[in-house]
Amino acid sequence: MHTVEPPYVAVIFTSTRTDTDDGYDRTAQRMSQLAARQPGYLGHESARSDGLGITVSYWATEADAQNWKLVSEHRIAQDRGRDTWYRDYSVRIAVVTRAYGMDRR
Amino acid sequence: MHTVEPPYVAVIFTSTRTDTDDGYDRTAQRMSQLAARQPGYLGHESARSDGLGITVSYWATEADAQNWKLVSEHRIAQDRGRDTWYRDYSVRIAVVTRAYGMDRR
Repeated sequence: MHTVEPPYVAVIFTSTRTDTDDGYDRTAQRMSQLAARQPGYLGHESARSDGLGITVSYWATEADAQNWKLVSEHRIAQDRGRDTWYRDYSVRIAVVTRAYGMDRR
Repeated sequence: MHTVEPPYVAVIFTSTRTDTDDGYDRTAQRMSQLAARQPGYLGHESARSDGLGITVSYWATEADAQNWKLVSEHRIAQDRGRDTWYRDYSVRIAVVTRAYGMDRR
């Protein structure tokens, strides 16, 4: 995924799930849509295997990332995550200083 | 995964694979072992789904992350990655400034 030239902010969310699905996929999809409408949203990428999930979302500024955390519908989802969906999780807020890559397309 | 108190460095490697395996898993495993012996290595986490892979490795300093990039056996693996295993990839070097989470265990 292409973002912008650094610096920008990456929020690294890693998690392991409980066995309880109960609306998880629907909420995850809804949060993707909602995040994409937030000011400063640059994109996000997710993968999950062997129980470990990693989602990295990219934001123009730390304030933009923080504002997304405080969106009320997202806060409700975060509460359900803590209560129901996640066994454990970590959130790391980071400033991307350099980026490079390869794209064959 | 627990790391140390921020600040520390996260290297976010995202990739999509080609259809060619040809030693990929063996090399990935070897690189995991080799990275863990590098000075300043704090840990790494990987997940892959729907073709997208995300690996985040954590380092005490940017110099430590840079030194791992330059390890000769790792450079050979990077060449094979570019030539054979990856359709595209991005590397983002980021400074983790804050971290929090939940751990039920």
